[in-house]
Amino acid sequence: MKEKRNIYLTNIPLKEAQETYFSRVDILNLNSETEVVPVRESLDKVSVSPIFARKSSPNYNAAAMDGVAVVAAETYGATEINPLRLKRNSGFEFINTGGHIKEPYDAVIMIEDIVEIDKDWIEIYESANLWQHIRPIGEDIVEGELIISANHQIRPVDIGALLAGQIKEVEVYKLPRVGIIPTGSEIIDVSEEMTAGKIIESNASMFAAMIKQYQAIPKRYPVVVDEYNLIKEQVLKAVEENQLVVVNAGSSAGSKDYTVDVLREIGEVVIHGVATKPGKPVILAIVKGKPVVGIPGYPVSAYFTFEFFVKPLVAKLNHRPLQQPTTLRAYLSRRVVSSLKYEEYIRIKLGLVNDKMIATPLERGAGVTMSLVRADGVLVIPQQSEGYEGGTEVEVQLLKSTNEIQNTIVSIGSHDLVMDLLSDQLHYNHNNIYLSSAHVGSLGGIMAMKKGECHIAPVHLLDTVSGNYNEAYVKRYLNDQQIALIKFVGRSQGLMLKGGNPKGIKGIKDLQRPEVTFVNRQRGAGTRVLLDYHLSKEEIESSQIQGYEREMTTHMAVAAAIAGGTADCGLGIYSAAKAMGLDFIPIAWEDYDLLVTQEALKDVKILSLLETLKNTEYIKKIEALGGYKTDRIGEIIIL
Amino acid sequence: MKEKRNIYLTNIPLKEAQETYFSRVDILNLNSETEVVPVRESLDKVSVSPIFARKSSPNYNAAAMDGVAVVAAETYGATEINPLRLKRNSGFEFINTGGHIKEPYDAVIMIEDIVEIDKDWIEIYESANLWQHIRPIGEDIVEGELIISANHQIRPVDIGALLAGQIKEVEVYKLPRVGIIPTGSEIIDVSEEMTAGKIIESNASMFAAMIKQYQAIPKRYPVVVDEYNLIKEQVLKAVEENQLVVVNAGSSAGSKDYTVDVLREIGEVVIHGVATKPGKPVILAIVKGKPVVGIPGYPVSAYFTFEFFVKPLVAKLNHRPLQQPTTLRAYLSRRVVSSLKYEEYIRIKLGLVNDKMIATPLERGAGVTMSLVRADGVLVIPQQSEGYEGGTEVEVQLLKSTNEIQNTIVSIGSHDLVMDLLSDQLHYNHNNIYLSSAHVGSLGGIMAMKKGECHIAPVHLLDTVSGNYNEAYVKRYLNDQQIALIKFVGRSQGLMLKGGNPKGIKGIKDLQRPEVTFVNRQRGAGTRVLLDYHLSKEEIESSQIQGYEREMTTHMAVAAAIAGGTADCGLGIYSAAKAMGLDFIPIAWEDYDLLVTQEALKDVKILSLLETLKNTEYIKKIEALGGYKTDRIGEIIIL
Repeated sequence: MKEKRNIYLTNIPLKEAQETYFSRVDILNLNSETEVVPVRESLDKVSVSPIFARKSSPNYNAAAMDGVAVVAAETYGATEINPLRLKRNSGFEFINTGGHIKEPYDAVIMIEDIVEIDKDWIEIYESANLWQHIRPIGEDIVEGELIISANHQIRPVDIGALLAGQIKEVEVYKLPRVGIIPTGSEIIDVSEEMTAGKIIESNASMFAAMIKQYQAIPKRYPVVVDEYNLIKEQVLKAVEENQLVVVNAGSSAGSKDYTVDVLREIGEVVIHGVATKPGKPVILAIVKGKPVVGIPGYPVSAYFTFEFFVKPLVAKLNHRPLQQPTTLRAYLSRRVVSSLKYEEYIRIKLGLVNDKMIATPLERGAGVTMSLVRADGVLVIPQQSEGYEGGTEVEVQLLKSTNEIQNTIVSIGSHDLVMDLLSDQLHYNHNNIYLSSAHVGSLGGIMAMKKGECHIAPVHLLDTVSGNYNEAYVKRYLNDQQIALIKFVGRSQGLMLKGGNPKGIKGIKDLQRPEVTFVNRQRGAGTRVLLDYHLSKEEIESSQIQGYEREMTTHMAVAAAIAGGTADCGLGIYSAAKAMGLDFIPIAWEDYDLLVTQEALKDVKILSLLETLKNTEYIKKIEALGGYKTDRIGEIIIL
Repeated sequence: MKEKRNIYLTNIPLKEAQETYFSRVDILNLNSETEVVPVRESLDKVSVSPIFARKSSPNYNAAAMDGVAVVAAETYGATEINPLRLKRNSGFEFINTGGHIKEPYDAVIMIEDIVEIDKDWIEIYESANLWQHIRPIGEDIVEGELIISANHQIRPVDIGALLAGQIKEVEVYKLPRVGIIPTGSEIIDVSEEMTAGKIIESNASMFAAMIKQYQAIPKRYPVVVDEYNLIKEQVLKAVEENQLVVVNAGSSAGSKDYTVDVLREIGEVVIHGVATKPGKPVILAIVKGKPVVGIPGYPVSAYFTFEFFVKPLVAKLNHRPLQQPTTLRAYLSRRVVSSLKYEEYIRIKLGLVNDKMIATPLERGAGVTMSLVRADGVLVIPQQSEGYEGGTEVEVQLLKSTNEIQNTIVSIGSHDLVMDLLSDQLHYNHNNIYLSSAHVGSLGGIMAMKKGECHIAPVHLLDTVSGNYNEAYVKRYLNDQQIALIKFVGRSQGLMLKGGNPKGIKGIKDLQRPEVTFVNRQRGAGTRVLLDYHLSKEEIESSQIQGYEREMTTHMAVAAAIAGGTADCGLGIYSAAKAMGLDFIPIAWEDYDLLVTQEALKDVKILSLLETLKNTEYIKKIEALGGYKTDRIGEIIIL
């Protein structure tokens, strides 16, 4: 097996890379296949040529009202005082809206404006103007009129107009075909059995869905293992069968990253490495006259690189203008630091709090798929910028609709599984209301509340002096605000341990044993406050604990670390331990509550949340998790 | 045959009608069918329940960098000065990004930071922190974590995350089925032969496409003629087969409008008649526990009524929030008057001229399909309002993307077929640039230019004193602006006559013959100025001409009126006469030019337009129309 490393990637600015590569692709003159389809099946397809109406619509003079068709010249002189009588079939004819006005008739009088004397005679009280209440030939569409241009994406109203203009068929571009090749010896299909060291193929499936949204046809090839010749074979086959090919991954410079060498052998690598983060190790190549893009493997890098390069290429192949993202202006809730080396793409949570749109940066790891799922938008930090201070007004590209963002309750604070369930139940009961959570710990939640960055803050903070939960902290930090406490759950905190407790841990005291490794929560988390309280009670120094410095931001992440064997124990809630099949030693019951401003209690979103909290179905779900008390749920305490 | 009239419709405000009807539909508890689909096929479908990760991702501790796996504790003390040597397979192992970190290793050092001494030994220069450059189990997704809520429309990133969380299948709602019944004895299919008095079925096909865009499955039934029992039968069948049924039309109160009576017999009519324009005669009914909506027949009324009632119903059936229209703020270019009786929906052309978004109202006829095709947005005038003055800032609901609107050249002025061709050619050559035209005549164009409402104004105005075209008018009306004239075409104006010229018309003089009927252009049209000039030369009074008062806004509309037999002749351009197969008596050659501000000559959109004007393919198309001179096309005259 060939082993080598391409340590050197270029660091070309994104715009420059796009311009260079796309202008190379432009001169390839990629041929576009066309087809003729019935107009009724042409929705969302793109016209090849302009289309002019074959006939006028209406193609006859039509009544615009229900009434009688008359000869205008014969009605002159009719008034309220001197009504005029007209005889059926010689002086007038009854006609319905849309009816054909035949000679000699040239005006319509509305049914409301006549009086029927008997079945043959009517009286009118006003003269009719020539052509009144008649839709003349071509009023709707005139023969020869341009209905749609070339390169026009056909909409429902266009279909209506084309048919009205007597167009039956339309020549459109066929959708381009995009080949997607997943590579990697560690990649398996979701249907295969999972073992350590294996990763489920997910990027190529995400790409296939993105390609469908770009209005093209994805073809996903089977996973290719990291072997030079197999990759080469598959790329050549895909180039044959598609107008554009995507290889994922192997685009970086590791010893198993063959993609760039393969593409160099069978084609030309125009660019390898772009100055964006995430997304850097992209390959932009041309093979046998067709564009081939090598996309990095980390899900978030993969997503962005795909948007940077594949989306515009598909738009080109599709004869459609590239859809620009919708943006909105928002204020950063905290400082964002960025390297001068890259243009950086930061996932953002948005929330409209007190009529101010707040942008909160999410985790930045290239591998954190869930940060993409949770993101409402993206903030682009230019290559020349070191980032932005908190409070700066920035422009955010939207990943969700403005409507959804405006109807989202923003929660910043402590994490608990009951919050996930609440988010789900709320949206289930109130289809147009959403709950989004950022997990920054209880103290982080209080600070967010103080700065007006969230609607609610879930907290569980023990006042070690009074033994009281939450209220003391509100009084200490939020005494200038009108705050209310929504009682949520009592929950059982304790030591989560590997199943069977192989190290025989019995309590907090055992944490100082040198062979016991611990995994901690982040600074500001209520669970960490609780740990420190118990450590000081037992007079244990944090430096005596192996792993005290290793921080996770959720209970489930701590539980996962223990289940995965990288730590022996950690402090957390019963439900998380149970979900991961861990042993559990209870340490304390604590109050996990929601802070909210008193003003917000009138907000329809918060009222919906309160209603959901008391929903019996929801309470049943909490109780099924285990380790919770729900007897005070939904109670409001004005502080 | 039963003949009757339902003259009385209610006039209920739209919001009230929606609330009343939708709350009635809500309690029907329309059952939603679900299905289980592979995650990869779940794009755009809506989840039935919340979905939690089955396993963590990664489900092993993975290298986050290419490098070497080491035991952190064994690296302490390594510095630049005192490097540490590690032995392969006992002290370290080479590892690629994504590789499995096995015990006892617990840190990764990047490949760039080591020196390979030989094939067995490396040197490191810094100690490694515990877990550095390792993606711990669950970093991406933690087992049990909520990936998507219930009632969530699945996106590409969700598909990626679901697969990464080892979810293979997902339960989703089946798309609802919507039955569409076109009715009307005058309606024929586009495949049938056209005769006078017939109208091609286009609404139901437009509805089917709209239903697809709403993410549901349309079922279009064959056209039913206006017979009570046939309509009843078809509605009953459709109610059986679908979750929602739309009947079009027969919703009004004409003698053949059976829909409301049918729905009253087999179900309940909740509302008949809503206070909107267009859209008034809608029927909102419930038949056998399912919603049935009767939609009026005029295309524009049909479109809006469908959006008002069918779209929200489909969103309900679909468990999706109703998509709110995107809006933008714009300034009205002219006054819009509205009745206090209705909430009015005005089609709007938008254009960004001199950094100001200008909204120009389009024709308001309920039957004018092309006004919907051309519209960029919709202005809603509340029921209690009499309309808005010109210059008012209003909120416009968008029908096109902001991007398209910003890249559109706004043309206001005279109409010519070469403008239609130009619009097409420009967009063909420049995929992201659009040209939109409003036809208000040459003087209207000059006024729009004066008020800064358009980028270009096509004009052909004869100065009867100097015999000069256009320049004199610019000097008279636009002397305070820096204007340039882009020479466009010379064109042949003349009398358009019914083929064979049955009335033996030889010239302008014949227009005063009492048996000759004329069709005119609107006030402010250059063609009308030309007519009046020739009438005064021949000393003919306008009152002597039959039809002088009948106004059309385009050459093609005049030609269509003559071809349709409602007039004997009209003044217009050769190409229009030729397109409609009319005879033509030339009267004059005139200069049809484009006005533009000198400032705009630097605008990339206008530069693209100039390039397109000189495009040989485009010039060929103009010449193929006949009646044009193109020798000065694209020449710029600074005035």
